[in-house]
Amino acid sequence: MSPPEYPTPLSHVHTRTSFMHRRTAPGEVPGTLVTDPNSPDPVFQILKYSIDTLYENKNVRLDAILSAPEYQPDDHSVTWINIEGLGNASAVEALGKAYRLHPLALEDVVNAHQRPKLEPYENVIYVVARMPHPEMLNDTEQVSFFLGKNFLITFQEGTPGDVFEPVRERIRESKGRIRQPNAAYLMYALLDTAIDQYFPQLEYYVDLLESIEDRILKFPYAEVASELHTIRRHLLFLHRSIRPLQDMLNAIMREERFVDEATRVYLRDCLDHTAQLMDMLDTYRDVATQLMDMSVSAAGHRMNEIMKFLTVMSSIFIPLTFIAGVYGMNFDHSVSPYNMPELHWVYGYPFCLFLMAISVIALIAFFRYRGWLGIPESDRHHRKTRRSQR
Amino acid sequence: MSPPEYPTPLSHVHTRTSFMHRRTAPGEVPGTLVTDPNSPDPVFQILKYSIDTLYENKNVRLDAILSAPEYQPDDHSVTWINIEGLGNASAVEALGKAYRLHPLALEDVVNAHQRPKLEPYENVIYVVARMPHPEMLNDTEQVSFFLGKNFLITFQEGTPGDVFEPVRERIRESKGRIRQPNAAYLMYALLDTAIDQYFPQLEYYVDLLESIEDRILKFPYAEVASELHTIRRHLLFLHRSIRPLQDMLNAIMREERFVDEATRVYLRDCLDHTAQLMDMLDTYRDVATQLMDMSVSAAGHRMNEIMKFLTVMSSIFIPLTFIAGVYGMNFDHSVSPYNMPELHWVYGYPFCLFLMAISVIALIAFFRYRGWLGIPESDRHHRKTRRSQR
Amino acid sequence: MSPPEYPTPLSHVHTRTSFMHRRTAPGEVPGTLVTDPNSPDPVFQILKYSIDTLYENKNVRLDAILSAPEYQPDDHSVTWINIEGLGNASAVEALGKAYRLHPLALEDVVNAHQRPKLEPYENVIYVVARMPHPEMLNDTEQVSFFLGKNFLITFQEGTPGDVFEPVRERIRESKGRIRQPNAAYLMYALLDTAIDQYFPQLEYYVDLLESIEDRILKFPYAEVASELHTIRRHLLFLHRSIRPLQDMLNAIMREERFVDEATRVYLRDCLDHTAQLMDMLDTYRDVATQLMDMSVSAAGHRMNEIMKFLTVMSSIFIPLTFIAGVYGMNFDHSVSPYNMPELHWVYGYPFCLFLMAISVIALIAFFRYRGWLGIPESDRHHRKTRRSQR
Amino acid sequence: MSPPEYPTPLSHVHTRTSFMHRRTAPGEVPGTLVTDPNSPDPVFQILKYSIDTLYENKNVRLDAILSAPEYQPDDHSVTWINIEGLGNASAVEALGKAYRLHPLALEDVVNAHQRPKLEPYENVIYVVARMPHPEMLNDTEQVSFFLGKNFLITFQEGTPGDVFEPVRERIRESKGRIRQPNAAYLMYALLDTAIDQYFPQLEYYVDLLESIEDRILKFPYAEVASELHTIRRHLLFLHRSIRPLQDMLNAIMREERFVDEATRVYLRDCLDHTAQLMDMLDTYRDVATQLMDMSVSAAGHRMNEIMKFLTVMSSIFIPLTFIAGVYGMNFDHSVSPYNMPELHWVYGYPFCLFLMAISVIALIAFFRYRGWLGIPESDRHHRKTRRSQR
Amino acid sequence: MSPPEYPTPLSHVHTRTSFMHRRTAPGEVPGTLVTDPNSPDPVFQILKYSIDTLYENKNVRLDAILSAPEYQPDDHSVTWINIEGLGNASAVEALGKAYRLHPLALEDVVNAHQRPKLEPYENVIYVVARMPHPEMLNDTEQVSFFLGKNFLITFQEGTPGDVFEPVRERIRESKGRIRQPNAAYLMYALLDTAIDQYFPQLEYYVDLLESIEDRILKFPYAEVASELHTIRRHLLFLHRSIRPLQDMLNAIMREERFVDEATRVYLRDCLDHTAQLMDMLDTYRDVATQLMDMSVSAAGHRMNEIMKFLTVMSSIFIPLTFIAGVYGMNFDHSVSPYNMPELHWVYGYPFCLFLMAISVIALIAFFRYRGWLGIPESDRHHRKTRRSQR
Repeated sequence: MSPPEYPTPLSHVHTRTSFMHRRTAPGEVPGTLVTDPNSPDPVFQILKYSIDTLYENKNVRLDAILSAPEYQPDDHSVTWINIEGLGNASAVEALGKAYRLHPLALEDVVNAHQRPKLEPYENVIYVVARMPHPEMLNDTEQVSFFLGKNFLITFQEGTPGDVFEPVRERIRESKGRIRQPNAAYLMYALLDTAIDQYFPQLEYYVDLLESIEDRILKFPYAEVASELHTIRRHLLFLHRSIRPLQDMLNAIMREERFVDEATRVYLRDCLDHTAQLMDMLDTYRDVATQLMDMSVSAAGHRMNEIMKFLTVMSSIFIPLTFIAGVYGMNFDHSVSPYNMPELHWVYGYPFCLFLMAISVIALIAFFRYRGWLGIPESDRHHRKTRRSQR
Repeated sequence: MSPPEYPTPLSHVHTRTSFMHRRTAPGEVPGTLVTDPNSPDPVFQILKYSIDTLYENKNVRLDAILSAPEYQPDDHSVTWINIEGLGNASAVEALGKAYRLHPLALEDVVNAHQRPKLEPYENVIYVVARMPHPEMLNDTEQVSFFLGKNFLITFQEGTPGDVFEPVRERIRESKGRIRQPNAAYLMYALLDTAIDQYFPQLEYYVDLLESIEDRILKFPYAEVASELHTIRRHLLFLHRSIRPLQDMLNAIMREERFVDEATRVYLRDCLDHTAQLMDMLDTYRDVATQLMDMSVSAAGHRMNEIMKFLTVMSSIFIPLTFIAGVYGMNFDHSVSPYNMPELHWVYGYPFCLFLMAISVIALIAFFRYRGWLGIPESDRHHRKTRRSQR
Repeated sequence: MSPPEYPTPLSHVHTRTSFMHRRTAPGEVPGTLVTDPNSPDPVFQILKYSIDTLYENKNVRLDAILSAPEYQPDDHSVTWINIEGLGNASAVEALGKAYRLHPLALEDVVNAHQRPKLEPYENVIYVVARMPHPEMLNDTEQVSFFLGKNFLITFQEGTPGDVFEPVRERIRESKGRIRQPNAAYLMYALLDTAIDQYFPQLEYYVDLLESIEDRILKFPYAEVASELHTIRRHLLFLHRSIRPLQDMLNAIMREERFVDEATRVYLRDCLDHTAQLMDMLDTYRDVATQLMDMSVSAAGHRMNEIMKFLTVMSSIFIPLTFIAGVYGMNFDHSVSPYNMPELHWVYGYPFCLFLMAISVIALIAFFRYRGWLGIPESDRHHRKTRRSQR
Repeated sequence: MSPPEYPTPLSHVHTRTSFMHRRTAPGEVPGTLVTDPNSPDPVFQILKYSIDTLYENKNVRLDAILSAPEYQPDDHSVTWINIEGLGNASAVEALGKAYRLHPLALEDVVNAHQRPKLEPYENVIYVVARMPHPEMLNDTEQVSFFLGKNFLITFQEGTPGDVFEPVRERIRESKGRIRQPNAAYLMYALLDTAIDQYFPQLEYYVDLLESIEDRILKFPYAEVASELHTIRRHLLFLHRSIRPLQDMLNAIMREERFVDEATRVYLRDCLDHTAQLMDMLDTYRDVATQLMDMSVSAAGHRMNEIMKFLTVMSSIFIPLTFIAGVYGMNFDHSVSPYNMPELHWVYGYPFCLFLMAISVIALIAFFRYRGWLGIPESDRHHRKTRRSQR
Repeated sequence: MSPPEYPTPLSHVHTRTSFMHRRTAPGEVPGTLVTDPNSPDPVFQILKYSIDTLYENKNVRLDAILSAPEYQPDDHSVTWINIEGLGNASAVEALGKAYRLHPLALEDVVNAHQRPKLEPYENVIYVVARMPHPEMLNDTEQVSFFLGKNFLITFQEGTPGDVFEPVRERIRESKGRIRQPNAAYLMYALLDTAIDQYFPQLEYYVDLLESIEDRILKFPYAEVASELHTIRRHLLFLHRSIRPLQDMLNAIMREERFVDEATRVYLRDCLDHTAQLMDMLDTYRDVATQLMDMSVSAAGHRMNEIMKFLTVMSSIFIPLTFIAGVYGMNFDHSVSPYNMPELHWVYGYPFCLFLMAISVIALIAFFRYRGWLGIPESDRHHRKTRRSQR
């Protein structure tokens, strides 16, 4: 097993750095679908199941969804249409028309920068969730859900990776309650999966923070400011993504038209997960702030120590150099006995050295008295007290 | 395509810097209209439409509005009167009398420093919105709406540019739902257009912030403080303009007398846009604060490095200069052998140089031991650890 | 017209600096009236009006108010009794007994340090408002209102200036709605006048802030800290005075017993003014904080520059002085050729100067490389980039 | 009259510094009475009154309270039992049994570290209030009230001083409404007295703050940090004691079983006093924070000035000392004319002094240009501008 | 009695430092029980009691619990099943099936990182509480309760120590109300015991804080930053554990199906304890912050003093050294009388020393004037004033 101490450093992970821009111009007709030119073409998947029937097609044509009789919703089964990729506005419009989805909701589907929210419409509820991008830090992917009485339509942005596959597997293997003819439970299962994607990412950050704390404790002057800044920014971004999820889940639980009592118990569990996520986020942000404080105070302490050393050293040498300077003067002793008689004393040089020694001793004594040398008195005292207590 | 990296710098954009003053004196009769002497004379525009009729006049006289039969509101069509420029109090009063607009509301129309709000009156609702000034940063323009059963009266301050033209175009071309005889939907369309004006402005600031981050990352000591201060102040100003828009839109949605269910769905979308704006604003303010922190800590780091260099350098030279000073003293060796015998040793000068070298080596060793030279031990260790992990 | 740039500096305006003390001792019987010994003797003014009658007396005796038949309240007119000065407890008590005012309310009238509030009693509502002192910054004056069905009693502290005169003038000239037999509307008119007194004062502060910003921009190192501290403190004081006004106005609007629907529309306008005041206050406090930050960062920047200059300068001279010191040593060359042979070289002095020049050049190069000299590389680069973009 | 400027300094007033510890062990049976071993033995006082009867005993035995017929509660009078000192658990228990007081409430009575609160029980309401310790700063005393239909039982900790004596006096002299057979009004009177004890203490702090501000203004570098720290801590402590009083008073006003309408008006007044206290506290805390800021910025300013002086001084002398060092070198002119010819010029020394003068002048000019000397340009300019405006 | 001044230092106490990780993978079937591999095997304890019967078994097999007739719940007694250790998923599942506990709740039982909460189910309420780890700082243990009509099931993590033993003892000895057939009262007693565990821990921290304050007051420059950082972090952790307990207790009090009125009074007392805990936490966090501020300002003050000393010292010696340097120059007096005539004056050396003395005196006078020496003028003045006041 590889040593778990140091997680992959931040600089080695793909990170989104630029901000999103809006594509729709002010004054545009509301409900106009402007797709992102970089978005991939949509792939349609359909899965219709009841307790004992199952139709699945992983790459179905739009025509079939709209017309093939086996794919039409009915009251005994759940029809789940999943669209990956938002690059084709007319396909989205056609599907929207067939299932009577409101143009404003469809506009938000293709404008994939929405905050998590629920919008109730007459025949469906429209839910937007966000989950962390599978391969990029500081980025999230939008997942849109249209929940009807007996159908669920989901739109994904089409980034690599397929987080819904475990749920599909559970449907195929009929694990747990999933095959019940209950579209709301299916939406819960997908939402739960999407939200649980945040846990591994948060754990990556906590590993980073632990490794940074480790470094600060071992090497008090380590440079961690820029890393901590980045982490705090990413955590802030996650906070902004996760917080509205709570409102959204609460809104779903209030939608009694589409969500039954039993599913609500499960949604409450999902809500509890987001509460845990928020709690973790808050804790980590506090930890990051504290680590920042610790590293700043360590750096300040270090600078102070350097300055103190310089101060003490130059304070000691300044008078010495002055004395040496004085006896380097060239006053002419031959003119008068007042001109630097010391230079011509028998013990002149020893006297001068003695003067210097006195000055050094006096200054060191003064510094000790003031507690400016080595360990401060206080700490030494405290240690002694503690030692004697044991 | 021109390089998008650097947006127009802040200093090249017109910016409002002074604060507004109130014109009405305390104790004045409420409802007194005191117009701004710099405000342009009003231009009246009228547009009356139903699904299959359309009357438009881009510069109509007030008399015609009040008396011409084709311009009088009726139940089958929407009458939209738009006034650009607030420089004529008596014209505003005459219009207000004809349409029974409350004097307090008219006072707020000409005193164009109101916060966004809704005030319900018996026969109309009075709505104040603010949109960014088209040619000046840190400034907003007030738009006032009087929404009646079958008419809408809008007042603009008369700044250059005509943001409502796209809506007029949609009415003329009968695009979307706009030609329905529903004055509330018209107000929604205009509000939506006004509010969407904030997006390009916010995107300008985010471009600025990205360019600043870029500079900090490339040149850690760049001077960005004053730019960031200005940006934070502008964002604060935008925050104060946009936040009350949310309360105002919520208030409109509660006005069941004038706003039907279908229009409410659209207003909810508009509300969602303001929520997005607030979200962007909060994020950008956090980013600006973090950039400030980053640049402050970079400047501090730099200062510390300079000081450290000075400290190390003077600490090394101080004893050297002292030694040189000592052997520059003029004690008279001819008087006694105690006076500076070193000067007359055969290897006196080499001994002195040796002494100096010892002192330099000892100090450098001490600095290395304390980690005050070059890269701190900790970072070097950490890098090694990481390198060996890969 | 005089130049408006610099408002009267803070130090030239009278400012209250001490805090109020309470006069009533703990354990006193509630409702005991303890008047301020410095408060002036009360002056009684009476004004009784209906749409077509008007009795006014600017200095009436208390007896007349209590007994003269033309001054007794009746259902067809409004009786307004205004008392300026709170120096006579027994007069206040007598009036209170006649109009059945609660002793606790009267205690608050004479203890003129109350926060704005509304207290409903059986037969009246008691309202406390505060307005800025006309001649002193950082001080407010208490105005108390007792609103009955057909009468209004107001108490002022008796400071110089008469802010209610414009309202009295409107009553005399019968301007607007004021002569209607509606005591609540009269109270609104007075409250509105009192609250509007805050606008000129706030505008004084904003002028101050603008002049300070001006100075910081022109002379980055101007000393503005103490002025900004004072301004922030005054703004905080204003905040504490104005905020409870909002609760008080809301409470008045809920008092359906005394306030009719039409007056409520006007009170809403008054409430809107306090919202504007709060908005201005919040903005100005943010601006003051930002100016403080800007000036602190400018001062820090300046200190850093001074230190950098010293550092560079002494770093350059330290080795030079050392070299000069070395060749000032007096080792005896006559004893051995090892003792300072350089002094006796033909090109010894030029060699020494050359050594010094080399040291200077090396250090300057090192500083340039590190970016510690003049404008940092980064800014220069950025300017070039911007220049080439234009 | 003694000069009021300087209040007794903090260091001369008794101050509680240690925190309370809880005496009950986890897992103990709830309702167990564990008395503080340092608490004095209880003294029982009884006072039973109606409008025209009065029984009082200042040191009655517990037996008498429980059995003497004149002390038993009846419907026409109020029985007030006051216990000073909590040192006897069994006496408290006996009284509790006789008056049916809940064991949990009695536990809180003897555990005198409760926050102010109200707990409704079937036959009584239990109210905890705190009042400032009469002789010690940063400490409060707990007062517990059991309010029944016709009796009131109060428990005090037994600290010196008797704050309830003024109320007792009012009962004896039948001042105001106090003799009405209304136990709730008695509780109000006692609560009001207890709460009003906070005013003198707060005024002590405001006097301290004013004296500190005075010192900062007169001597900008006064050491006030530790005093301000202590004051802020005490104010925080007061905040924690007073804030829950508001909730408690609101809760009493909702207790319609025990509190009649008329008493509620008085409690509202009491609530208004706590609102005033909170307002004062908030203001003083802001003032303390601002004074701290002011003193920190003054200290920083002073340090900067000292450093600037050193910088300027050493910058001026460094080149001078270098020049002197150069001409102190001993290069042998007899060997070659290149070795220090200046020493042998006729005007060598004047030339050298001239060189030094040039260097000094150049540096001073540079410093002036940069504005690093004396008063900064900006302030001087500003002063001139202001002077010319007057 | 041992001296209580210094509590065990933080570094001598076991402290949890790493963060928890989640074990369930995203997309897992909800209700899957994934046990912690380090968790001990469960020990089952059963205790069934009514007022006059008592069955207890401290290590019973699961079979017996599920089948033995004396352990089955009945309406006249309370059945309490306590499980210590969560290492066996199938046992938990079997018990859950027998008592109809919801799989989602059981998942939270074994995933022992839940926040305190209440989840109502059809036949039970599920309550999660956290109590401090008995032997490790900064760690808490999860306790889960399933409360039915006549049974209570509790799950503990199985850490050493048995906090519930005092309650068991009370049941055996039938102390207080505990033997009543009321499962809710039993849950209250256990919750109360668990929550009261926080008091000793908080008191440990307050002792630490007091000892730190002591050190700061005695030795102003003591190094306390890292200790205070750790304490603040632990207090933050405790805050996060205790705050949700309040919501949880409030939720229990609203559960009228399972909790009777009499027990609610006791729960209110428990809620009051958590309010006290929160109050203590808030106070201690403020104290820690203030101590940090005090120590930072003390360290800054000390650094300033050191720097001031250096500044004064070098400022005094700089001109002296320069003068000595000047008279150490070797200008050739024999060439011209302009070259350093002072050296050949009769009183040259005394003149030079006099010059130096003048310079020293002038500088010291300047420093005194500026107040840069010793105690600042201001403080001295203040002390005098105070002395004369006494």
